[in-house]
Amino acid sequence: MRPTGRLHLGHLVGALDNWVAMQDEYECIFGIVDWHALTSEYQNVEGISDNITDIAIDWIAAGLDPEKSTLMLQSMVPEHAELHLLFSMFVPIPWLERVPTYKEQIIQLKEKDLSTYGFLGYPVLQSADILVYRGEVVPVGEDQVSHIELCREIARRFNNLYAPVFPEPQPKLTKAARLPGTDGRKMSKSYGNEIQLSEDPNSIRTKIMPMVTDPARVRRTDPGNPDVCPVFDLHRVFTPQEGRDWVMEGCKTAGIGCVDCKKRLLEELVPIVEPLHEKRVELERNPSRVRETLVEGSRKAREVAAATMDSARQAMRLKY
Amino acid sequence: MRPTGRLHLGHLVGALDNWVAMQDEYECIFGIVDWHALTSEYQNVEGISDNITDIAIDWIAAGLDPEKSTLMLQSMVPEHAELHLLFSMFVPIPWLERVPTYKEQIIQLKEKDLSTYGFLGYPVLQSADILVYRGEVVPVGEDQVSHIELCREIARRFNNLYAPVFPEPQPKLTKAARLPGTDGRKMSKSYGNEIQLSEDPNSIRTKIMPMVTDPARVRRTDPGNPDVCPVFDLHRVFTPQEGRDWVMEGCKTAGIGCVDCKKRLLEELVPIVEPLHEKRVELERNPSRVRETLVEGSRKAREVAAATMDSARQAMRLKY
Repeated sequence: MRPTGRLHLGHLVGALDNWVAMQDEYECIFGIVDWHALTSEYQNVEGISDNITDIAIDWIAAGLDPEKSTLMLQSMVPEHAELHLLFSMFVPIPWLERVPTYKEQIIQLKEKDLSTYGFLGYPVLQSADILVYRGEVVPVGEDQVSHIELCREIARRFNNLYAPVFPEPQPKLTKAARLPGTDGRKMSKSYGNEIQLSEDPNSIRTKIMPMVTDPARVRRTDPGNPDVCPVFDLHRVFTPQEGRDWVMEGCKTAGIGCVDCKKRLLEELVPIVEPLHEKRVELERNPSRVRETLVEGSRKAREVAAATMDSARQAMRLKY
Repeated sequence: MRPTGRLHLGHLVGALDNWVAMQDEYECIFGIVDWHALTSEYQNVEGISDNITDIAIDWIAAGLDPEKSTLMLQSMVPEHAELHLLFSMFVPIPWLERVPTYKEQIIQLKEKDLSTYGFLGYPVLQSADILVYRGEVVPVGEDQVSHIELCREIARRFNNLYAPVFPEPQPKLTKAARLPGTDGRKMSKSYGNEIQLSEDPNSIRTKIMPMVTDPARVRRTDPGNPDVCPVFDLHRVFTPQEGRDWVMEGCKTAGIGCVDCKKRLLEELVPIVEPLHEKRVELERNPSRVRETLVEGSRKAREVAAATMDSARQAMRLKY
């Protein structure tokens, strides 16, 4: 994960919940990739350090457990940079230009300068991030599958050119629950419509209660249409079947008002976010312990990375 | 210098002689850049290790002195890779495409695959090689001046974006003595026309004596034209004025034959190459000491590089 700010409910549903579950099934390494933040943010590095602490806190609060898994910081494991350099030697530029996200992002993020060498090489660095641990399974969303495919091609090319050092990692797709933000658009920091993981219950209330609902339901006595209501989109993700049915029925018949519907949603959201918030408050009291967790995790990660680099250098005849 | 094989007289005249002299004037770091060898040779890594030993031996034999200067191996100083990655984030691709050697080499080295990400980034890695030691002066030939200019632009951009960490290195031009090989073309390993630094005197004789001379001078009694004779090109570089005059006069008047002229050249070449050859024989007896020199030099280099990286990380807010 790139350190670009505090996490929100979209990250929980789209990634963290799955990661927490994976910890019992796999030997997991979770990385905060600060060098990647530079690919688009090289002109704006001021907040990186705070963002790292924020993400680490959100991770631990959400249940990533340093006892079970390795939580690491990319720039503390310089082997990522070395493997990226070695890979760069045999990765054809057209492989990179073909990655669908490359041209997409250049078009979408017009206000950023993405014409850099590093931005083109983003998926090479990402492949190094995975393969430096000989990662076998990578939890990703649909939009990242092409990057994993490139990573597999890089592993394959290395193995063919030199020696079989790397596995070909498999993507593990997370169910792509598109989570709407408080304005109905996709929840995203750049839209300012997010509910942060670490928000306190009051703050969540003040975001949910004024949410726009079905615009056709002007009066309390008008029946509403949940299918066009962003609040109901949140019910779809967070409220169990029974509660959803109650909301659906009540809305369509004007049996309940929008306030009732939102209060019902808060009954689901608050118990999710409140313990995360409390855990954050506790962790924030001791940021040096959070830092220590990353230092220790990065040290453990480095041991694995160093062993991989040893094999990679040997294979490329770079062990002198 | 890239580890692509034993050095020849062209390297001595074009670079090494100058480097040896610089040792008394500057604090010098000389690097064998094995990662750079991969930019064009990633499919052919078999000989890299032997080539490293060969170059180190040629260097020491020619007078690079590990007591005065730092002799290092790039892959032993991973800070080069990390700085290369950091630079890559803000180097625009057009800067790299504009480097004159980039398109030239793609055209000239058709048999090699140069369409790789790493080949495009060659001058970024080269800039990291220089700036990781905050190098101020770089001895180069004319053809490399554009790379030093790029290196200065990278230093300038870093300093402007973040903090003034890097100097803007100056090229120190070596007098570009174009040294012909035994067939009259530029001396180069790829033409197979080179006289190696480490050749023994007999081997040099067997290369010089059969050299083609002025093709119009068929018989001993024909006068020759030194201006079209590759042997005289070598006299121009190695023989002092007086000897050159003697050869010139004798050739033009048929006073001397080509055999005399070549023997006169050997009088100059043998005393240059013979001690280098003897030194090589001695060093070859103990290759582990040569390796130790590089290990120790790289360790010293790493201290300097680590201090630079510390400042660079701090400037880019990557110190967590």
